Amino acid sequence: MGQTVIQHLLERLKEIGITDIFGVPGDYSFPVNDAFCTDSDFNWIGCCNELNAAYAADGYARIKGKSAVCTTYGVGELSAINGIAGCYAENLPVFHIVGIPKCSVQRNGNLIHHSLGNGEFDLFYKMTQPVVCASTILTAENTVAEVERCINAALTKKQPVYIAVPADEALKELGCTKPHTLPLPVSDQDTLDTVIPLIIERLEKAESAIAMVGALIGRYELHEPMLEFIDKSSIPFTSMFMAKGTLSETHPNFIGVYNGRILDEKVQQTVESADLVVSFGTIRSDINTGAFTVNIRPNHEIKIHPDRVCIGHAVYHNVLLEDVLHELSARIGNLSLPIPMTPQGLGEPVGAADDEITADSLYPRIERFFAANDIIMGETGTPSMGLVNARLPKDAVFFNQTLWGSIGWGTPAAFGAALAAPDRRTLLITGEGAHQMTVQEICQFARFKLKPIIICVNNDGYLIERLLCEDPYIYYNDLAQWNYSKLPEALGMDGWFSAKVTTNRELDEALQKAAAADNGCYIEVVTGMMESPKMGRVLNEIVVKGPGWKA
Amino acid sequence: MGQTVIQHLLERLKEIGITDIFGVPGDYSFPVNDAFCTDSDFNWIGCCNELNAAYAADGYARIKGKSAVCTTYGVGELSAINGIAGCYAENLPVFHIVGIPKCSVQRNGNLIHHSLGNGEFDLFYKMTQPVVCASTILTAENTVAEVERCINAALTKKQPVYIAVPADEALKELGCTKPHTLPLPVSDQDTLDTVIPLIIERLEKAESAIAMVGALIGRYELHEPMLEFIDKSSIPFTSMFMAKGTLSETHPNFIGVYNGRILDEKVQQTVESADLVVSFGTIRSDINTGAFTVNIRPNHEIKIHPDRVCIGHAVYHNVLLEDVLHELSARIGNLSLPIPMTPQGLGEPVGAADDEITADSLYPRIERFFAANDIIMGETGTPSMGLVNARLPKDAVFFNQTLWGSIGWGTPAAFGAALAAPDRRTLLITGEGAHQMTVQEICQFARFKLKPIIICVNNDGYLIERLLCEDPYIYYNDLAQWNYSKLPEALGMDGWFSAKVTTNRELDEALQKAAAADNGCYIEVVTGMMESPKMGRVLNEIVVKGPGWKA
Repeated sequence: MGQTVIQHLLERLKEIGITDIFGVPGDYSFPVNDAFCTDSDFNWIGCCNELNAAYAADGYARIKGKSAVCTTYGVGELSAINGIAGCYAENLPVFHIVGIPKCSVQRNGNLIHHSLGNGEFDLFYKMTQPVVCASTILTAENTVAEVERCINAALTKKQPVYIAVPADEALKELGCTKPHTLPLPVSDQDTLDTVIPLIIERLEKAESAIAMVGALIGRYELHEPMLEFIDKSSIPFTSMFMAKGTLSETHPNFIGVYNGRILDEKVQQTVESADLVVSFGTIRSDINTGAFTVNIRPNHEIKIHPDRVCIGHAVYHNVLLEDVLHELSARIGNLSLPIPMTPQGLGEPVGAADDEITADSLYPRIERFFAANDIIMGETGTPSMGLVNARLPKDAVFFNQTLWGSIGWGTPAAFGAALAAPDRRTLLITGEGAHQMTVQEICQFARFKLKPIIICVNNDGYLIERLLCEDPYIYYNDLAQWNYSKLPEALGMDGWFSAKVTTNRELDEALQKAAAADNGCYIEVVTGMMESPKMGRVLNEIVVKGPGWKA
Repeated sequence: MGQTVIQHLLERLKEIGITDIFGVPGDYSFPVNDAFCTDSDFNWIGCCNELNAAYAADGYARIKGKSAVCTTYGVGELSAINGIAGCYAENLPVFHIVGIPKCSVQRNGNLIHHSLGNGEFDLFYKMTQPVVCASTILTAENTVAEVERCINAALTKKQPVYIAVPADEALKELGCTKPHTLPLPVSDQDTLDTVIPLIIERLEKAESAIAMVGALIGRYELHEPMLEFIDKSSIPFTSMFMAKGTLSETHPNFIGVYNGRILDEKVQQTVESADLVVSFGTIRSDINTGAFTVNIRPNHEIKIHPDRVCIGHAVYHNVLLEDVLHELSARIGNLSLPIPMTPQGLGEPVGAADDEITADSLYPRIERFFAANDIIMGETGTPSMGLVNARLPKDAVFFNQTLWGSIGWGTPAAFGAALAAPDRRTLLITGEGAHQMTVQEICQFARFKLKPIIICVNNDGYLIERLLCEDPYIYYNDLAQWNYSKLPEALGMDGWFSAKVTTNRELDEALQKAAAADNGCYIEVVTGMMESPKMGRVLNEIVVKGPGWKA
């Protein structure tokens, strides 16, 4: 027998570098699960539930550029769908592989488990379409072409794809083996030749140009070409919130994170008064623009998007970000621009040793704890806001889910990231409200021999919501009270260091132990209910007391 | 100012008896969240995450007939969608109320958090449509009519509805207050007058008639009329798996649960050799029919569905189950039928005191532990299969998610059920694989002062999957190892009784303590990896080694 449908899918996944598969098995997906688990090139990474598996795949793709998650029909795929939607919004190419009932069963219209009982079997496939950039149901006849189409879409658009594999078709021999090579898109050379000199001319004329690094630089894995352009031109650069840590924050040209009037005022003034801002792969969402307070004059900005360049109000289509970066680096000289400022980070930690922990005593301590090459996952809400102005050590990277903002993402995403880079140290900083959503996944760190440091900030409720709603103390923002530091023991994380800290001294001691530990660490940090970093307080001023999101 | 959109929605929910709202707050839903939390007639029941909230609403609706869950836009509603789909498949009218961004923001097309960043704002509303029986986006103009339409659909079809409330419209005064009373459907009197004598004639002629109770009797809250018909006619009755415990299993006419050739052979013979089976509100899905081994000759069956009657191959439309039951009870006399058998339950618990716990030593012990009026939640997988033949004490009810079969449902559904009936004892029997999916929600039992008994069967993996796949020991069926009995302490469930038991003696002692406890109880029951109740073993014979699901 020749190659089967599932064998072909696995071969192509392997060829594009995907061998770790997050997922939860299920009976309709047994042929798929079996294939992954009996092929020694693949690692099946079992997760506690499907949403967590999707979040883990998200975190993994942030490190490795792409990833895969496998679920079963109906119950599994729908549980994962919020995580997949997050990958769509945040540009992460995740392959969602779903084992579905046999085509023969579907044709009969039987009332089978995991179906809605109405004989309609393609509803979940349809439901998922708005949150993927391509989707397919494989058959022996279409597999070769459809797998190529999905791979091409995922890698071009950096968004998830949905591949359903019927249990019977999975094991059938390919009905068509003709290779279907789909070319990746290329730049239009004429347009590129037009636009590059225009950009260079503007850069050479500028007296205070700034480069602004956006999240898509990371998603398109263009760290190196981006850095090369900065180094060759000597241009100072800022990052947007969503792109924090995309380039090393120890780079001498880095001036800090720009987020409108929500963050550092000096960065804001520097960026907004620059006579030219060249932005690369930026996403202008609410939280990423300081509640739409980013204020760059259109005629002073050149925006380089994944597939087009905007110079002022003129748009040049069909030029790829990657090609623009390469051409700029090839043709640019040293612009001899002054570096207007150096980011100061969060400053000295405040607070006496026996004082209770405050936002201002906590986040600077965490900043000092960061080490070179760390992977830092900042959960949506006050934890990522507390760290956005922390200056990261060399090659430390920072991720948050700025646009989709699904609380609970951080915990499994940290697991996924740690699994993608087991030799690096992974830190998760999460609020306890988000943590409760997906907490069980921390067991997987121990199961897969990973040694992260988890900092759970327990401020007795959903703090970001207290800051954004009318009455901070309204009871929907309250949570069940847990003994977080006992979770590692309950969840079988043998040998982990665990602590609950309420004073700065205890925090310092716990961080010291964590730095020296040869195992995973879990630190519950108790703070007052309204202990918010500055960004949260400013958002409160703008959104609740001020003009609102202004959207 | 007159009544607002959100005030009107709350008033109507109150009028139909919904005052407990499961949910997770979010900034787009603040106007909705605020309304629930500032109206003292409502109880906001905060859950750890949205899927758990939906499952809890499912469990609550099984007890109280209907329920509500409230989530925020995008991230929240999509997290809940698998739970909502389960309510659709299993006929539970759950009101899913979703706070969405202001219409003004949507019109601007801004890149806001929790959106996909593509300016399309109605995608989640569309994605949800296949799993609800009605959906709407409220405005000041349409609220009165749309709320009525959704209520009518939910209560008629016993399925979930989706009501989106834009943050700005929520607070607007109603633009149209004209009442829109929508009549509930009624039977066609002529058809009813035709069909009732036909049924009675068949019943009176029969020598071995059996009534078969289906799950929709519970969903349509027809327990009393169903019982009245059985009592007046003295007909013996069986229940399907999905309807177990719908009528009290101590009733003298109850012969046991019928599930084709998967369960008790004598029940099978009795039902299949009966000269007439009258089924009421049954759903013929795979697991509910013993993998399609239910075998009742069409000409020997009368099927009474929610809106039609089938006599042999003749279908009579537009007659409601409720009316058929009432008319039958009014016109039927005592049929003087013999009661062919009495269910024997699971029998004496086997196993010496110091033996390890086996399936055959465990489930009979749990059966003996059941008490009158208990609410028993049997999670999908071997736990519900181990208990389906347990004979329930008077007025004890039993629920499982037979059709949708989403593992993880049981834990939050038990919380929802317990909250719906805090004066009754709630038992959850779950496997540890399912439990890991949604485990955090057990904290809510303690938070809301509920005292359930949780039995977590730890058999080192997904046992039902080991039984249904080719290689039981393939590693996708393995799980992280937890210390389950330490969960109550970690999750802040102060004062709970907790135990881990591995022998029959330890199990007996733990159950004894649980019976006497004045607080919640958590018992981890360790068994061998392949310790399956009989139904699981028979399924294995049929599905893996035999003819398959035959669908």
